[in-house]
Amino acid sequence: MSDKAAAEQDTVVEVDANDGRGFQPVDAATAQLAQLAVAEDTQEAEEDDDLANLPKKVLLRLDALRKLQEAQAEVEEEFEKERKQLELKYEKLYQPFYHQRAEIVTGAKEVDAVSAEPQTEGDADEEDVKGVPGFWLRALMNHSVLADLIHERDLAAFEFLADVHSASHEEDNGFKLTFEFSENPFFTNKTLTKEYDIGDASESGEAVLRNVTGTVIDWKESQNLCEVTKKVKQRAKGGKGESRVISRTEPCDSFFQFFTPVEMPSEEDDEDVRAAWS
Amino acid sequence: MSDKAAAEQDTVVEVDANDGRGFQPVDAATAQLAQLAVAEDTQEAEEDDDLANLPKKVLLRLDALRKLQEAQAEVEEEFEKERKQLELKYEKLYQPFYHQRAEIVTGAKEVDAVSAEPQTEGDADEEDVKGVPGFWLRALMNHSVLADLIHERDLAAFEFLADVHSASHEEDNGFKLTFEFSENPFFTNKTLTKEYDIGDASESGEAVLRNVTGTVIDWKESQNLCEVTKKVKQRAKGGKGESRVISRTEPCDSFFQFFTPVEMPSEEDDEDVRAAWS
Repeated sequence: MSDKAAAEQDTVVEVDANDGRGFQPVDAATAQLAQLAVAEDTQEAEEDDDLANLPKKVLLRLDALRKLQEAQAEVEEEFEKERKQLELKYEKLYQPFYHQRAEIVTGAKEVDAVSAEPQTEGDADEEDVKGVPGFWLRALMNHSVLADLIHERDLAAFEFLADVHSASHEEDNGFKLTFEFSENPFFTNKTLTKEYDIGDASESGEAVLRNVTGTVIDWKESQNLCEVTKKVKQRAKGGKGESRVISRTEPCDSFFQFFTPVEMPSEEDDEDVRAAWS
Repeated sequence: MSDKAAAEQDTVVEVDANDGRGFQPVDAATAQLAQLAVAEDTQEAEEDDDLANLPKKVLLRLDALRKLQEAQAEVEEEFEKERKQLELKYEKLYQPFYHQRAEIVTGAKEVDAVSAEPQTEGDADEEDVKGVPGFWLRALMNHSVLADLIHERDLAAFEFLADVHSASHEEDNGFKLTFEFSENPFFTNKTLTKEYDIGDASESGEAVLRNVTGTVIDWKESQNLCEVTKKVKQRAKGGKGESRVISRTEPCDSFFQFFTPVEMPSEEDDEDVRAAWS
């Protein structure tokens, strides 16, 4: 980012970590300490070795504890379902606010205060200012993690970012991010999306990221922000001092790499790793 | 931890991060990306400077966005309340499971399978094994963060740890951890507690840790696990070669330091820091 852009970023809008998904920073730090529970051990072979020395009475008690844990897990599954429903309910309640925000930001709808404002002399210059230019760039730049993803070369494209929204999956913990763009010189897509397919926490006790998909961007000619073309001097084969200049295209850092489809490690890969270690 | 203890720790029980507080690891990683919202800026002075250059129409639109955000915050507050209620409801539903677990672990109640077991010859040795010895030590040692807090000197005291439980505050996001001990040679307290006073997330948009309190442990004579007494040779003042041996008591690493009351930085301290930086 340029200094000017950096100086601009510290006001007006920011990404809000408290987003209605039930995530709270303090929870994350304290949750692990907060409650302690017996967990089913999946490494049964190892366990058998280790437990072989325990008195039989103790083993029978451990077995009872395991059954107790299974019964509690069923109740926890109900909790996860209710929590999910609550989150979906509020996600729907937030939509009218997001919709109105998008209208104001893009200028699709004017706010009353502007309409009521009497036309004064200086206003002539402002005729063309529609909505809130740069709103989303500022919002994203105010988030430390996102700010690092945005590079100077991306800034011109962000002028055309009209709205960003997220939609949770109804059936699991996944969600889909949508970036809406207006007509722009960079790509022809109207929306760029990134979707996270996240398993149901109640199944395995822990939500697992199963898959991530992104939009393939249809870049306009020579406008690909994720690539740079370098001119390289190349010496001709066997030639003495003769050389020619060729172009070489390489991937480069850009926010738009965010949409590049991610390859997830397969279960087979996991097994390979395991085999290599054993 | 000794090697033996370390070898014992990898089975049977473990601390469960998925504890019904709505915390999920994946949420933590993705929540910040998931939804983007306008946030009220508290640094009004800076903001005024930065916004002075914006056209008046845009300022009026930003004002409308701010009001929209405030209206949404009220709905979010309702969400936080409902979520809290849901968590409390399930915390209550989990209690019978925790209660039964404590009974089995401490041996307060025998499990049916043991009672039904016919008495065989080898059982004579087992007569005295009550409940599940070392259950909580194993549970805590299976958690990477907690394992680092537990030192070899603490192990003997953990034999007397009968139960660990957590209770959420009804009115805010705080909670209280209680460690129940049976009669032991180390301290006279029956319970050691640590309480986290955590603000309501709906007030400021972010849960804030306001205060942490811990139990002052009544150590029995010479049994304080949080202190070591060292013998130090001390040369007499002005004496030539004369010296005496004195005892010096120093704090040392122990799990039980966990209960040492924490001094929270006051708001005045915050101001001092701010003044130092400006």
